[in-house]
Amino acid sequence: MYKSDRDALLLTPGPLTTTLRTKQAMLHDVGSWDTTFNSVTANVCSELLKIAHGEETHVCIPLQGSGTFSVEAAIGTLVPRNGKVLVPDNGAYCARILKILRYLGRESVELSFQENQAVSAQAVAVALDRDPGITHVALVHCETGAGILNPLEEVAEVVKAKGRRLIVDAMSSFGAIEINVKQLSIDGLVAASGKCLEGVPGMGFVIANQSSLESSAGNSHSLALDLYDQWQYMQKAGQWRFTPPTHVVLALQEAIAQFNEEGGALARLQRYTNNCKTLISSMATLGLKPFLEVPSQAPIIVTFHAPESSSYDFRSFYLAVREQGFILYPGKLTQTETFRVGCIGAITSTDIDKAVNAIASTLRSMKVID
Amino acid sequence: MYKSDRDALLLTPGPLTTTLRTKQAMLHDVGSWDTTFNSVTANVCSELLKIAHGEETHVCIPLQGSGTFSVEAAIGTLVPRNGKVLVPDNGAYCARILKILRYLGRESVELSFQENQAVSAQAVAVALDRDPGITHVALVHCETGAGILNPLEEVAEVVKAKGRRLIVDAMSSFGAIEINVKQLSIDGLVAASGKCLEGVPGMGFVIANQSSLESSAGNSHSLALDLYDQWQYMQKAGQWRFTPPTHVVLALQEAIAQFNEEGGALARLQRYTNNCKTLISSMATLGLKPFLEVPSQAPIIVTFHAPESSSYDFRSFYLAVREQGFILYPGKLTQTETFRVGCIGAITSTDIDKAVNAIASTLRSMKVID
Repeated sequence: MYKSDRDALLLTPGPLTTTLRTKQAMLHDVGSWDTTFNSVTANVCSELLKIAHGEETHVCIPLQGSGTFSVEAAIGTLVPRNGKVLVPDNGAYCARILKILRYLGRESVELSFQENQAVSAQAVAVALDRDPGITHVALVHCETGAGILNPLEEVAEVVKAKGRRLIVDAMSSFGAIEINVKQLSIDGLVAASGKCLEGVPGMGFVIANQSSLESSAGNSHSLALDLYDQWQYMQKAGQWRFTPPTHVVLALQEAIAQFNEEGGALARLQRYTNNCKTLISSMATLGLKPFLEVPSQAPIIVTFHAPESSSYDFRSFYLAVREQGFILYPGKLTQTETFRVGCIGAITSTDIDKAVNAIASTLRSMKVID
Repeated sequence: MYKSDRDALLLTPGPLTTTLRTKQAMLHDVGSWDTTFNSVTANVCSELLKIAHGEETHVCIPLQGSGTFSVEAAIGTLVPRNGKVLVPDNGAYCARILKILRYLGRESVELSFQENQAVSAQAVAVALDRDPGITHVALVHCETGAGILNPLEEVAEVVKAKGRRLIVDAMSSFGAIEINVKQLSIDGLVAASGKCLEGVPGMGFVIANQSSLESSAGNSHSLALDLYDQWQYMQKAGQWRFTPPTHVVLALQEAIAQFNEEGGALARLQRYTNNCKTLISSMATLGLKPFLEVPSQAPIIVTFHAPESSSYDFRSFYLAVREQGFILYPGKLTQTETFRVGCIGAITSTDIDKAVNAIASTLRSMKVID
């Protein structure tokens, strides 16, 4: 039987659909020690720093591995061994930070919110007042567990006013939502190649305040994840300490070029917002309701309540939609049955329309809707 | 001016020159949660286990990041917190293991050898007898600092006889030199995608003895580098815990297919040995002598003494050879001026001949040789 060799579109929180141009940048083998590759690394870092508005105050340290490796590296390097970290928690990625802190033996304080509720800056202020021992706050900007956008600017203001330091997991927002690390006095901002920058997965990076990083020698629990050591070596040699994922770095450079051509974070946000609005309004015509209220919904990934019909099950639904060329994502909530649809990657609202058509015809043939 | 867009051949310890077929496998975006990708991961792991002869006794745990991330993960996971590790040290990668142990706060004993001398199994036996507190030995199989092949089988025999456990950094040998993890009772064998398997860099893996791994819960100092946790999750979900470098994994699957088509490790060793012999004999006609004696020279990378002429400097030499399409590698020895030429990757002795011709014409035009 004839089978198309076209890739399904990835409507997920990452890896994402990337452009052919980005993938084709990987058709080259380059030497990790060679000046050609060193200048790619330098160029990528300087572009990332520019996107974060950190040219005057911050440095960019790339790191091998998934984004979580960079989150752990940022915490392990920037938080002193006797530091204490407040973690506003409204989802799976916040919980992961708490888990990292337990592994690292750093003290932590959990500040819980509902899964459908954005973090409250006011509550962060109260928690900081209550415990003067807290040195850092670790905030997840876009919590893709449910798809919530947390109020980074308000939280940053509170953290600064209370004289503490801020680490931001901006994995799913960086490149789409403007973040100014200098203005917000962010100590460490963490993101990765395979999210809204639309590169391929395989490396993360930390935009770190230079003076914080300079005083972080000896903090790290790990050689591989020691950002201070990675930065020192790069400063000296212009190279990565350990074998870099050269093809991934080449793809990221090409992805950033396209990001700039598109018009930067503002243009990207517009496209994603358009994707998100199209998705929510078209799904509404099928009776599918988003889990979140509009104000806290990030235009990154949308969680939908599963249809209530007894003829629905996620597995069959997923496979039938995939058969039509669209990869959806399961829910990650503990209390409610949901599924997720991503709005990010090299896709437009036309693609979203097609996906919703596929979802509609699937639900019809499953007899979930008429 | 016209400039060729062909990539230079990488005569380095990695990243290496790979086939176009391997790189083209990366022209696809796949979902990390999707069954298609899960079966790629399962297939890659089962192939790696087969290459290591560990099907009955071992499991394969892939890990994001460079090979060093996997070395640190293997040590951090397999060595208990109160363990003590003997490190036979004859080069830069042995020194790196010692550095990892210091970061992790695990006790270590260094057993020093000269940089041009293979590790002696006899000396390992003496060291183990002297200190009954030593629980593990961490051996670098091919120490690419100088290019030495350490006697893995002899050391493994000693470690087993003395009732200790063995961790092997086989980064630069795995896929080219046969290793039987079951026969040699290896606790953890570490390698990576971008070396003799001829994939692209971006992930490592550990072939771990299953019962050792099963009793390693709680050892790890790091969430990201916890092999036990990674393995548990994969067993349960068939997926990586954190975003996998999907393109790198696709390339590795394609590289392993070609490895099998070539005839496995034996055929690959033959090709590399042929490359290495061609290199050494052709370089000899230019008066360039290898740093190592024949018996300890691995057919992976060859360290050459720098020409003694005062008109030689590595930088100019390197750039001129690169201009002709070949990337060489600097020396990594502390005492002697050297440079290195790799024999591995998707290259044949014909490529080596061309590279030596480029080296010859460069040295002539530098007036280093007549």
